[in-house]
Amino acid sequence: MTAPTDVGIVLGSASDWPQVEPAAVLLKEWGIAFEVVVASAHRAPKRVQAYGREAAARGIKVIIAVAGMAAHLAGVLAAETTLPVIGVPMPGSHLKGLDSLLSTVQMPAGVPVATMAIGTAGAKNAAIFAAQILALGDPRLQERLQRHKQELEEQVAQQGNQIPGEFRRGD
Amino acid sequence: MTAPTDVGIVLGSASDWPQVEPAAVLLKEWGIAFEVVVASAHRAPKRVQAYGREAAARGIKVIIAVAGMAAHLAGVLAAETTLPVIGVPMPGSHLKGLDSLLSTVQMPAGVPVATMAIGTAGAKNAAIFAAQILALGDPRLQERLQRHKQELEEQVAQQGNQIPGEFRRGD
Amino acid sequence: MTAPTDVGIVLGSASDWPQVEPAAVLLKEWGIAFEVVVASAHRAPKRVQAYGREAAARGIKVIIAVAGMAAHLAGVLAAETTLPVIGVPMPGSHLKGLDSLLSTVQMPAGVPVATMAIGTAGAKNAAIFAAQILALGDPRLQERLQRHKQELEEQVAQQGNQIPGEFRRGD
Amino acid sequence: MTAPTDVGIVLGSASDWPQVEPAAVLLKEWGIAFEVVVASAHRAPKRVQAYGREAAARGIKVIIAVAGMAAHLAGVLAAETTLPVIGVPMPGSHLKGLDSLLSTVQMPAGVPVATMAIGTAGAKNAAIFAAQILALGDPRLQERLQRHKQELEEQVAQQGNQIPGEFRRGD
Amino acid sequence: MTAPTDVGIVLGSASDWPQVEPAAVLLKEWGIAFEVVVASAHRAPKRVQAYGREAAARGIKVIIAVAGMAAHLAGVLAAETTLPVIGVPMPGSHLKGLDSLLSTVQMPAGVPVATMAIGTAGAKNAAIFAAQILALGDPRLQERLQRHKQELEEQVAQQGNQIPGEFRRGD
Amino acid sequence: MTAPTDVGIVLGSASDWPQVEPAAVLLKEWGIAFEVVVASAHRAPKRVQAYGREAAARGIKVIIAVAGMAAHLAGVLAAETTLPVIGVPMPGSHLKGLDSLLSTVQMPAGVPVATMAIGTAGAKNAAIFAAQILALGDPRLQERLQRHKQELEEQVAQQGNQIPGEFRRGD
Amino acid sequence: MTAPTDVGIVLGSASDWPQVEPAAVLLKEWGIAFEVVVASAHRAPKRVQAYGREAAARGIKVIIAVAGMAAHLAGVLAAETTLPVIGVPMPGSHLKGLDSLLSTVQMPAGVPVATMAIGTAGAKNAAIFAAQILALGDPRLQERLQRHKQELEEQVAQQGNQIPGEFRRGD
Amino acid sequence: MTAPTDVGIVLGSASDWPQVEPAAVLLKEWGIAFEVVVASAHRAPKRVQAYGREAAARGIKVIIAVAGMAAHLAGVLAAETTLPVIGVPMPGSHLKGLDSLLSTVQMPAGVPVATMAIGTAGAKNAAIFAAQILALGDPRLQERLQRHKQELEEQVAQQGNQIPGEFRRGD
Repeated sequence: MTAPTDVGIVLGSASDWPQVEPAAVLLKEWGIAFEVVVASAHRAPKRVQAYGREAAARGIKVIIAVAGMAAHLAGVLAAETTLPVIGVPMPGSHLKGLDSLLSTVQMPAGVPVATMAIGTAGAKNAAIFAAQILALGDPRLQERLQRHKQELEEQVAQQGNQIPGEFRRGD
Repeated sequence: MTAPTDVGIVLGSASDWPQVEPAAVLLKEWGIAFEVVVASAHRAPKRVQAYGREAAARGIKVIIAVAGMAAHLAGVLAAETTLPVIGVPMPGSHLKGLDSLLSTVQMPAGVPVATMAIGTAGAKNAAIFAAQILALGDPRLQERLQRHKQELEEQVAQQGNQIPGEFRRGD
Repeated sequence: MTAPTDVGIVLGSASDWPQVEPAAVLLKEWGIAFEVVVASAHRAPKRVQAYGREAAARGIKVIIAVAGMAAHLAGVLAAETTLPVIGVPMPGSHLKGLDSLLSTVQMPAGVPVATMAIGTAGAKNAAIFAAQILALGDPRLQERLQRHKQELEEQVAQQGNQIPGEFRRGD
Repeated sequence: MTAPTDVGIVLGSASDWPQVEPAAVLLKEWGIAFEVVVASAHRAPKRVQAYGREAAARGIKVIIAVAGMAAHLAGVLAAETTLPVIGVPMPGSHLKGLDSLLSTVQMPAGVPVATMAIGTAGAKNAAIFAAQILALGDPRLQERLQRHKQELEEQVAQQGNQIPGEFRRGD
Repeated sequence: MTAPTDVGIVLGSASDWPQVEPAAVLLKEWGIAFEVVVASAHRAPKRVQAYGREAAARGIKVIIAVAGMAAHLAGVLAAETTLPVIGVPMPGSHLKGLDSLLSTVQMPAGVPVATMAIGTAGAKNAAIFAAQILALGDPRLQERLQRHKQELEEQVAQQGNQIPGEFRRGD
Repeated sequence: MTAPTDVGIVLGSASDWPQVEPAAVLLKEWGIAFEVVVASAHRAPKRVQAYGREAAARGIKVIIAVAGMAAHLAGVLAAETTLPVIGVPMPGSHLKGLDSLLSTVQMPAGVPVATMAIGTAGAKNAAIFAAQILALGDPRLQERLQRHKQELEEQVAQQGNQIPGEFRRGD
Repeated sequence: MTAPTDVGIVLGSASDWPQVEPAAVLLKEWGIAFEVVVASAHRAPKRVQAYGREAAARGIKVIIAVAGMAAHLAGVLAAETTLPVIGVPMPGSHLKGLDSLLSTVQMPAGVPVATMAIGTAGAKNAAIFAAQILALGDPRLQERLQRHKQELEEQVAQQGNQIPGEFRRGD
Repeated sequence: MTAPTDVGIVLGSASDWPQVEPAAVLLKEWGIAFEVVVASAHRAPKRVQAYGREAAARGIKVIIAVAGMAAHLAGVLAAETTLPVIGVPMPGSHLKGLDSLLSTVQMPAGVPVATMAIGTAGAKNAAIFAAQILALGDPRLQERLQRHKQELEEQVAQQGNQIPGEFRRGD
């Protein structure tokens, strides 16, 4: 028997994958079962609608939608499901993601999309936010998040070494 | 036997009606058969999908989609049909329609939405643009458009009278 | 014995309350236990830090942070906790919420804030999104969300009546 | 006897051609007769005015206007004709096309320009939109558009293969 | 024999008159002969083209073009004449004049438009700038401009009285 | 013998006074000697230059410059003095202060302007920031600032009472 | 005896020269006497003030001011002279010239700056606009401008050859 | 006994160091004692809070906070201390620093952050502004700032040599 898939990552285009891969790596490292599908709201609408409608029944708990330009993907998925949908705006257009950010975040009252930062920072945060949701029912994951917070602190502390010694505050 | 409906106007919210009414009045005056429906891409997705899928078979020739905020309505309709879809961004949010404009116009390659100006000017132009499309197969409508151009010119000419005489160029 | 508090709403200023009240009403109607506190990241930082640090231990599951201008509240809370933090940008400044939106959503990799639309639509969606998270472990709430989706559809269907009959599509 | 030219593409500058070429290729593949002319609204106004005034009489059915910066080309053509004019904003300025987008889309009531996305995505969509208009009177083209929609769906389905197998959803 | 008209003010719409009136009053007070016409680039293109083509021969020396939204008026006039054209963006759209500013100022190399601030401040400055141009060949007007600079200084000096005495710097 | 004036507030226009008055009141309450002058960089440049050149010799320690639109006042003062210059962008234009913010903050390397938020919040913060500078050499003022921080915390704590009791967290 | 200098080009920084050189070449080709000076409003204010104050007496007729970031140069010059001042915003900052555009164009009523497009297009247009002003008193220059308009038209006509023959409209 | 540290530079990320190094070099050259630490408001909040709380007691007089994206660093430090806090927005995100600028400058009334330009120009100006503050109590530093102003003027004067001689104004 296979483990259930908890997180579904939907990409509006395979060209977004390089910006999303770090998020996938993080989910894998943290032992969160997930899947990645490509399904554009505009070019493959039935695929997106079906994914949204069936996700909960398939055991998916959180959906991450990644899209650029007039990014309708997260909103269309959120219209089809009551699962939490996290939106990640991609920066691929001439407007550098201002278009996809506003298309993702400015949802009307009634149908929320939890929007992250533009680009790969947002993709990574979408994975962490999904983990924060799942951790509410998973003490092991809660511990992993605590350790992640410590790791962030340690990374920051170590970054001080990248400042030349003459300028650095002595500890 | 009733006349076929040529233009379908889809509103994301009934609250947009006052900004769209002048467009409806224009279509009526020009003898273009149309219908108005309310069908939000986010709050009533099946209704929107069905409208898009069935429009061509029902004889609709042009769809006008009116929506604000993260305006996905036009894009979702365009994903479901090969009919021309005209998008009108509404200004109702705190960002005054910049969000709905970018959400409507920045469509990815493959699925066009013909975008008009924000608000009631855009709604009226959507009606005229629909008439321009229909006029390609309707000489009477082509004449009406020619007359409309003359009316615009005459209105401009008459507006000169609103400038106080002391400042106005004498004709 | 009292029910535990699941959702903590933190307002950067009491002046944001009128825009948040509809969200509070929705949570109450849906039977979700919540609390509202005022705690500015800039004017009362210890209060915010303490709230963030203690929230999980107090049983809070989701935090909603509401702030305007250089809206640091959600980010500061997210820095202190591994609970999901939802950010709602307020529009009170001269820049109409563009400042609070970017201050809330553009979080660096490592510390996510789930950002909603600017203003009261975003506040209401924050409440619904919190419910979507909690519903993952609460079948009754899951049903409430399903019913909410139906209510949205019905509202849209009824809105058609607000279009004057002469323009409306006959059903 | 030669076939009539259905679509006129007007470029504000020959330097825009590389971004427009994919649109021309698509029109050719779909068997739509078109022509490409260079005619700046600012540097060659008579040429633009003449093109707009004569287009309908020459048998043109749809005009596509491509321009950057203060992009007046589409608006000036629309002022001269009752044919549908599609505007494509080019991104060549320091403002990355925000200027040409607003200059193209924000037309006053009375003279519509159907605006597409900034850059080559918009150019390609202008061609598809022109096809959608022409297809209203051309069943063969209508079929071609249906097939295009299927091709888009198939492309999306195949893009899944670009996601590394370990992350991909198994079908 | 009447004095020649030196400045031609072209309004895209009579509704812009209230914002332009102070500019007209200033020109009158300074004894500069001018005329005001209404002539939209989109709704009355022939009128605009004719105005631009004939202005120099009629003795006009400077043209002021006032328009909102996708403000093409100044650019279209500048395309038709080698006279200096001053553009004043109007704020009447939902985007508060950002659209008309970019549509007016971002002219391509070869066809300049001298752009002023959005709204009535810009209109007044257009009148002053026209006077600065005309003053190059008119010593009396040059003196008037010098006096205007002194008046500005005196106005600023007197404005100090509007600050309550307890806060004001004593002279 | 009178106390020396420590802070000079320069207004680009007396019309900005209502937004600046709370800052003046705060400085007065905190016992900081200041003066208010009106001196536009564009309409009264000599006055501004003289103010900047003489301020240090007159004993001024900090200059606060308040201006809207193309706000050059702070930059022009900073060019004339080595005193700290604080800039406050005013929102009076059609662009709501985005223009004055960028005109104030984007100073080239070599000549800093310490920029505050747009409008009255920024004016008040300019006064507090001036106090923070002066407090480096004034223990009494340092104490006042500490008390101000406590007052801010207490205000936030009391604001909780404005939330209806049924929603409020019990303390 | 040397010819008088008609146009003064003031650069805020020598690093802007490459974008301005085409403008200088054009002025030279057209036989317009000009000079180029470097004089930052922030780093060399006395130099700028002196230039502005003395320009008219030195015989300068038009000033072109080129600056980036918080571009105060044009405004500061305009404050010192009644000559026409043309402003050219440079794009060198992270905001790509939006900052310098707004800092240059949004001048308050009373002190106009004639603003051109961002970057080298704007610089070239500043030179042409200066020529248009000077041509009011110089028939030879007026002829040169007429020829320039013809050259622009011819260039556009020839650009058609850059479109591959299979796509080009046959003449 | 070592000299006290007057300026504390806090970087949100070590990756910002290259843009900040010129500021550090300037402080060193001017003999101002400073330290550089890395301490993210989001990834290492306790470190930031501790730095802010202890800075005054450790003898720090001015804090410079450098951060990108949703830049909360300066605001969080300002919340913890009554020392002057200077904020420098970094341009590292897809929005080129518009996000970090607004996140830094739009502080609510009560807690000022003195904001500089985006990127390395802003970092250098932060160092100069810190020197201007310290110079109020340090005549030697005041002299250094005077000399800096002269150096800026001389640099500008010498930049004239970079303009080719044929275009340059003869001195």
